[in-house]
Amino acid sequence: MPSGIRGGPGRPRIPIQAYYSSFDGMSDTRDEPVDASDLTNAGAPTTVVASPKRLISAAAAGDAPRKVLHINGSFSEKEPPTSSHISQSDDHPPFNPPMPWFGIDVGGTLVKLVYFEPQEVLPEDAAEEVEQTKVILKYLTSNKTYGDTGIRDVHLEMKGVPIDHHTGTLHFIRFPSSAMEKFIHLAKAKGLSSLNTTVCATGGGAFAYEKYIRQEMKLELNKFDELESLISGIHYIEQHHPEESYYFENPLNDETCRKVPHSIRDLYPYLVVNIGSGVSVMLVESRTKFRRVWGTSIGGGTFLGLCCLLTGCETFEEGIALAAKGDHRNVDKLVRDIYGGDYSRFDLPGDTVASSFGQMLDPEWRKNAKPEDLARAVLVTVTNNIGSLAMMCAMNAKVDKVVFLGNFLRVNSVSMKQLSYAMDFWSKGKCKALFMEHEGYFGAVGCLLEYMNLGRQNAHHGGSSDK
Amino acid sequence: MPSGIRGGPGRPRIPIQAYYSSFDGMSDTRDEPVDASDLTNAGAPTTVVASPKRLISAAAAGDAPRKVLHINGSFSEKEPPTSSHISQSDDHPPFNPPMPWFGIDVGGTLVKLVYFEPQEVLPEDAAEEVEQTKVILKYLTSNKTYGDTGIRDVHLEMKGVPIDHHTGTLHFIRFPSSAMEKFIHLAKAKGLSSLNTTVCATGGGAFAYEKYIRQEMKLELNKFDELESLISGIHYIEQHHPEESYYFENPLNDETCRKVPHSIRDLYPYLVVNIGSGVSVMLVESRTKFRRVWGTSIGGGTFLGLCCLLTGCETFEEGIALAAKGDHRNVDKLVRDIYGGDYSRFDLPGDTVASSFGQMLDPEWRKNAKPEDLARAVLVTVTNNIGSLAMMCAMNAKVDKVVFLGNFLRVNSVSMKQLSYAMDFWSKGKCKALFMEHEGYFGAVGCLLEYMNLGRQNAHHGGSSDK
Repeated sequence: MPSGIRGGPGRPRIPIQAYYSSFDGMSDTRDEPVDASDLTNAGAPTTVVASPKRLISAAAAGDAPRKVLHINGSFSEKEPPTSSHISQSDDHPPFNPPMPWFGIDVGGTLVKLVYFEPQEVLPEDAAEEVEQTKVILKYLTSNKTYGDTGIRDVHLEMKGVPIDHHTGTLHFIRFPSSAMEKFIHLAKAKGLSSLNTTVCATGGGAFAYEKYIRQEMKLELNKFDELESLISGIHYIEQHHPEESYYFENPLNDETCRKVPHSIRDLYPYLVVNIGSGVSVMLVESRTKFRRVWGTSIGGGTFLGLCCLLTGCETFEEGIALAAKGDHRNVDKLVRDIYGGDYSRFDLPGDTVASSFGQMLDPEWRKNAKPEDLARAVLVTVTNNIGSLAMMCAMNAKVDKVVFLGNFLRVNSVSMKQLSYAMDFWSKGKCKALFMEHEGYFGAVGCLLEYMNLGRQNAHHGGSSDK
Repeated sequence: MPSGIRGGPGRPRIPIQAYYSSFDGMSDTRDEPVDASDLTNAGAPTTVVASPKRLISAAAAGDAPRKVLHINGSFSEKEPPTSSHISQSDDHPPFNPPMPWFGIDVGGTLVKLVYFEPQEVLPEDAAEEVEQTKVILKYLTSNKTYGDTGIRDVHLEMKGVPIDHHTGTLHFIRFPSSAMEKFIHLAKAKGLSSLNTTVCATGGGAFAYEKYIRQEMKLELNKFDELESLISGIHYIEQHHPEESYYFENPLNDETCRKVPHSIRDLYPYLVVNIGSGVSVMLVESRTKFRRVWGTSIGGGTFLGLCCLLTGCETFEEGIALAAKGDHRNVDKLVRDIYGGDYSRFDLPGDTVASSFGQMLDPEWRKNAKPEDLARAVLVTVTNNIGSLAMMCAMNAKVDKVVFLGNFLRVNSVSMKQLSYAMDFWSKGKCKALFMEHEGYFGAVGCLLEYMNLGRQNAHHGGSSDK
C-alpha cells in the first residue's frame, strides 16, 4: 500500500485536509452555535475587589489548591476583605485574575500575544507586582527575547479601551511558534510563574504545550477553542476600534486604489476566512452564533513552504517581497497558452490561469523562470484557491460579505488586492471582500477576554474554561 | 503596481483562475443547457450510401467547394448513385464524412486522438483510399511519429462498436500537445490532406491551431466545445462499454481493495470532475442537459509542474512513481504537529494535513525531505484540493455521485484511492467517488461523434458545427 496511506481496521491514516468535519459543518446537525456573549464581557461595570467564593472556585479549577494574588497585591491565604466591598449592584461580583493580563494564541507558525496594561493607578502595595509585570512586558516586547524574532506591532496598539471594569492599553506581540519553549523558559526566569498566574492560551499550541507549561512553570493552563476566541476577538476589536474593517476601492489601479473603512458591526450574516498556516471559513450569523463551514490546508504555510523550497528564501517577508517583483505568467499556463486567446465560451480572458505551474513541465520555461516569478506563482495559486473557496462558501451560505483575516495578509497587499478583484469579478460585483487592521491577533484578543472573564465563568459553571 | 497585476481602463489583467464565469455557472441564469442528444447519433439504423443534398451542404460548410470522397470510394464531382439506394425508412439519410474518421482533443498538456476503423468490407475501388488511411493510422499509432511520445492505449481499444450506420473498432491515441505542429506536418506529408478531409477538433488547441491547420494543410477545421464533446463522449462510451465506470471498495486496504463496476447510465444527476492540466466540474442533470458549475487551475499541470521543479523529474509517469514511494508527512504540517495529537473539537485525526508544505519553513525539515516525499506532498495537495472542491460542489448541487475523469488519474491509483476515501469520509458515506476506464479520451470521442454527425447537422442547420 502506498506510503502515507494506511488501511486496515481502525481509523485509516490517509492524508486528508484539516477541518473536514466540514461536511457536517455545512449541515446543521453539528457544530452547535457558540454563545459569543459568554466569551466577552467588555465594559461591565463592577468594583475592584476579589470575592472569596470566586477565588475558591477559581482555585478549584486548577490541579491543586493555590495561593491567589488579590488585586490589592499581597499574597495570603487569609480571608480577603469583607463582603461589604462587593458592589450590591453587580449580579456577577468582579473577579480580577492575576496579572499580567494577556492572551496567547499559539498557531502553526506564529505565536500571537495580546497584553492588556490597565491605566488605573493601583494601590501602593501592588507596586511590586506591577513592577514585576513591567519587567515581563519589557521582555515580552524585546526583540532579543526569543531568537531576535519577537516583534511588537506598535502600529496596532490600542489605548484607552475597556475590558471588564478596567480601562487600559492593548499591546500586540508575535513570535515564531518554534520559539515557544524558549519563551516559556524566559517567562519562567523572569518571574512570570512567581506571580503564580494562570496562563490562558488558544490555538493548537495551547494543547501541544499544555503538559510542558504545567511541568515547567507549575502553572494552571486554561485552553480555549481557537475559533471561538477568534470570533469573540473580532467582535471586541470591531466594537472598540472605529476604522478596523475596510475594503479596497479600485484594487487594481495604483493611482485610484484606496482603503475605504466599512464597519461590519451587526452586518450579519458574513463569512470570516482566517488564513494562517491553513485556512478556516466561518459563517457568522449573529453576535452570538457562528459555525465553521469549510477549510483548506493550502494556506500561508503552503505559500512560505513552497517559496522556501523554490526560491531559497527564509522568511515570509522575503517571500512576499520576492513575489511582489515577479510575474506568474512565466510559470503558469494561461488560457491564451492553450486557446491562443480568450476562451470566449466562458468569458475567460486569455490572461486567466488555466493551470497553475502548468508551464513548468517544459525544460525551457523552467530554465527561464526567475525566483521572483516562482514566488509570485505560489502567491497567486494560494490566493486564488482561497478566493475560490470563499466564493463558493459565500454562494452556498448566500452572504455578500467575506472578511479575510490572518497573518498571511500581513504586508501582503498583492493578495488583498487580488482577493478584492477576484471576489468582485466572480460575483459580478455582488460580493465584497473585507479586511481588518489587526489581521492575525483576533484569536489572542478573544483569549485575553476569556481570561479576564475566567472567574465569572468559574462562578457560573464551577469549572475551568477548557473546552 | 505589482507586476502581473495591470490596472487602468479596460479589463484588468489580474491573474484569476480559469473557469470563473462559474459564479454565473452556479446560478441558473447562463450556461444554457446543451442538448447532448444533438451531439451523438450512435447506432442510428441507415444504409451505407451518400446523399447528394448532404454532400452539397457539407461542402457548403467549408471555405471553398471541395471534392468529396463517396463511401463507394471513387473521387468524383459527378452525381452519386441514384436515390433508389437511399433507405426509405431513414428520416435523416446517411452522410459519410471523408475518411479517416477521427476526433482529436488538443488539451493543455496532451493531445487525445480517437480513430474509428469501420469493419465492413468496402467496395474494391475504395481500396486505394482505405490503404492510404491505413498508412495514416500506422503513423498515428507509431511511437516514432512525434518525438517518441505518441502512444496508442491498446488496452482501451473497443471492438464492434456502432457509430452512425457503421460498426467498427475505436483506437485511442495520445501525444504531447507540444508535438502538435510535428503531428500536423506528418499528417500532411503522409497524405492526410490529399484525402482532402475535414479535420474535427476540440480542446483549447482546436482554437490555437486553427489558422495553422487551415494554412498548412488547406483543410477545413470544425471546432467543437470541449465540455460538450466530453459529456457526449461519456454518454457514448458508458452506453457501449459495459464495465466502463466503477468505484473502489475498501480503497485503503491493499488486501481487500477492489474495483466494483457501477454503471452511471441514466443515474442523473451526477457531477463530472474532469482533471486535465486544470480542473472543470460539470453537473449532468439528464442525458440532454448539463452545465459547468466550477473549476480550479490546480490540476494535473500543477502536479507535474511542481514535481519537475522540486524533484527534477521529467514526465508524469516519473512523478507518479516517485510520489508512490514518498511520505507527505515529512513535508506537510499535520494537525498533530500543531495540536500534539487529534483536534477533537472537529474530529480531526492528528495525521490530517493542517498546512500543505507547512514543515518546509524549517531548514532542518527541508534538508530531510526526500524527492519522493516532495512528490507525494504535491500529489496529496492537488488531490485533496480537487476532492474538497468536488465535495462542496456535490453538497451545493445535492448530488451523491461524483465521476472523476481526466489523464491526471492515469496510472495514478494513489489519487483515485485518496479521492474515494476522502469523499466517503467527508460525506459520512453519503457521496460516492466514481471513475471511468477511458480516463482522458471522452472529449476526443465526443469530437469523433460530432464529425460522424456533421453532415446531418449541416443538413439540419445549414451551417458548420463551429460553436
